[in-house]
Amino acid sequence: MDPRIREHAEIIVDHSTDVQAGDNVVISAPGEAEDLAVALHEVVGDRGATPVYLANDSRAERAYLRAVDDDEFETPTHLQSLYEDTDVLIRVRAEANATEQSDVAPETQAEQSKATRPVQEVALSKRWCLTQFPSKGSAQLAGMSTEAYENFVWDAVNKDWDAQREHQAQMVDILDPASEVRIVSGDTTDVTMSVDGMSTLNDYAEKNLPGGEVFTAPVADSVEGEVLFDKPLYYQGREITGAHLVFEGGEVVEHSADQNEELLTEVLNTDDGARRLGELGIGMNRDIDRFTYNMLFDEKMGDTVHMAVGRAYDECVGDDREANESAVHVDMIVDMAEDSYIEVDGEVVQRDGTFRFEDGFDG
Amino acid sequence: MDPRIREHAEIIVDHSTDVQAGDNVVISAPGEAEDLAVALHEVVGDRGATPVYLANDSRAERAYLRAVDDDEFETPTHLQSLYEDTDVLIRVRAEANATEQSDVAPETQAEQSKATRPVQEVALSKRWCLTQFPSKGSAQLAGMSTEAYENFVWDAVNKDWDAQREHQAQMVDILDPASEVRIVSGDTTDVTMSVDGMSTLNDYAEKNLPGGEVFTAPVADSVEGEVLFDKPLYYQGREITGAHLVFEGGEVVEHSADQNEELLTEVLNTDDGARRLGELGIGMNRDIDRFTYNMLFDEKMGDTVHMAVGRAYDECVGDDREANESAVHVDMIVDMAEDSYIEVDGEVVQRDGTFRFEDGFDG
Repeated sequence: MDPRIREHAEIIVDHSTDVQAGDNVVISAPGEAEDLAVALHEVVGDRGATPVYLANDSRAERAYLRAVDDDEFETPTHLQSLYEDTDVLIRVRAEANATEQSDVAPETQAEQSKATRPVQEVALSKRWCLTQFPSKGSAQLAGMSTEAYENFVWDAVNKDWDAQREHQAQMVDILDPASEVRIVSGDTTDVTMSVDGMSTLNDYAEKNLPGGEVFTAPVADSVEGEVLFDKPLYYQGREITGAHLVFEGGEVVEHSADQNEELLTEVLNTDDGARRLGELGIGMNRDIDRFTYNMLFDEKMGDTVHMAVGRAYDECVGDDREANESAVHVDMIVDMAEDSYIEVDGEVVQRDGTFRFEDGFDG
Repeated sequence: MDPRIREHAEIIVDHSTDVQAGDNVVISAPGEAEDLAVALHEVVGDRGATPVYLANDSRAERAYLRAVDDDEFETPTHLQSLYEDTDVLIRVRAEANATEQSDVAPETQAEQSKATRPVQEVALSKRWCLTQFPSKGSAQLAGMSTEAYENFVWDAVNKDWDAQREHQAQMVDILDPASEVRIVSGDTTDVTMSVDGMSTLNDYAEKNLPGGEVFTAPVADSVEGEVLFDKPLYYQGREITGAHLVFEGGEVVEHSADQNEELLTEVLNTDDGARRLGELGIGMNRDIDRFTYNMLFDEKMGDTVHMAVGRAYDECVGDDREANESAVHVDMIVDMAEDSYIEVDGEVVQRDGTFRFEDGFDG
């Protein structure tokens, strides 16, 4: 087995989720990631914890979704019981066919999201980590050879996370005490939002592996302006390009997309919270040097910011603030490499992808 | 997809486990059986039930077993919680490598069996079905081409189970009211046991698919005599051949094997119940016409009987009888095709594989 797989497993178990003797662990991984699942079982066993292995199979999921009537979805209470008695959840992505669910109706997926929401809430209340195994299908989605993609993934994953944490802490120190954030890119994006009373978190590869962003939650009704998400978005097996959102009083009041606009509409119609922002994130992992149609990596790129419609992360929401709630959380990316800046309380903190605390910053 | 796979899935869901709308279902299947798992998700969804998909991966299981210290095994209480909230459990076998666990110490597997026993008890209290998918590794174990093995499996599985039930009911009518059973084969097997007060069940492919046996539980302290199990046994990736047991007062007082005797010793030493018989079964599925090193099929062969050391099935045990309890249940087979007979209360009911109610019986 490639030694990088075992290193990957050790980072997940020790750094990301801090597995301890006696912990109950759930490992959810598709067949393409079997090698990593095997390594995880070895490391989890070595630490004296007890694994359960879920298949996370997109073909089976598609077959189920197409067979059920949309009004018959029920909450998988047995899965919820499993999660309730679990300390650590490890979820591995690895596409066999990234378009496996392209013939499942968006409204079907939205109905299932609603039904599984109580289960997701339990899952998110545990120590969890989402990571990626470099399968052939994921390499294809990225437009890369399998070997080049393996190098890309493990370079981004198997790294010195303490050093990365310190680099990112500089941006946390700017954003955490701030009130207003403005994101401007070309003449297509100019949006302001309040982050007053919210917490900015430093993602150094605990819940996401790779990590590499700082993120917070906007005050839900404070978002004003428009955003063109100029990086494409892969959602449920379909590509949304050119998503454009207009916000008034925190709500999306207009939206369009160049491709698969009806899927974007479905997302926004899931529930009330799906029309408001739940996250503002700033990518800071410079080892992720290309766009791979994979949000877990794309949103961490150094010259990007991302915003998610839907559910806010509780940890970002101040005690006297309201968390935006939704069955969905869908990230979308703005390229900030050129003709762009981030303003915090009236001061430019990043211009054309370079932060104030980096060499070459041109305020 | 081969239409026999969907037929297989429908028999599991409708005949074997009677899945109903609103049921919680667990599907446990290795990657080799993905096609059947996909078909099961489709049929389960169509019936309005809700699946959870466990990976059942022997490489991951081996890695975990080798990593844990033998005195550190804990009951997987999260898996137990999953099962407690489940109505139907479907477990699919399909070997990628039948010897995957050949380098796990028998005592390690015995320790894990003890730790997982509470979970097994919950699982056995639900509607469940164990079945087989014709993977390449399972075909190799049987010494057959993949295509020939596919034909063998689906001929044995996709059949008229109502007709099979009626055929077998004739043997249930003999064994259920009986007191004493004697099994004689050549000069190596002559064993008697009481089945007084026990129930004989008709296995027509509910808990096992394929089905095709009638089975009961011996009165635990009544077994006397010796048995040579002349069909080999595959257990935890190793082959035990020529297992020979001598019973006195229901207990195994002597044992030996031609190959892997130490594994047989481990099994018998698991706990007190592992030294007593938990099951007597009589194979009656004439579509299973060859030995394939797979107990799910082998024990159903028409010219065989099998006995299991360890746990008795509760349904076989009369209200005023004691069930043999154990963390293990290990079936072993006696070939009854030649120079053999089964006697029930002093009357021969099968000779050289032919039952009293079949053509050609020579009492």
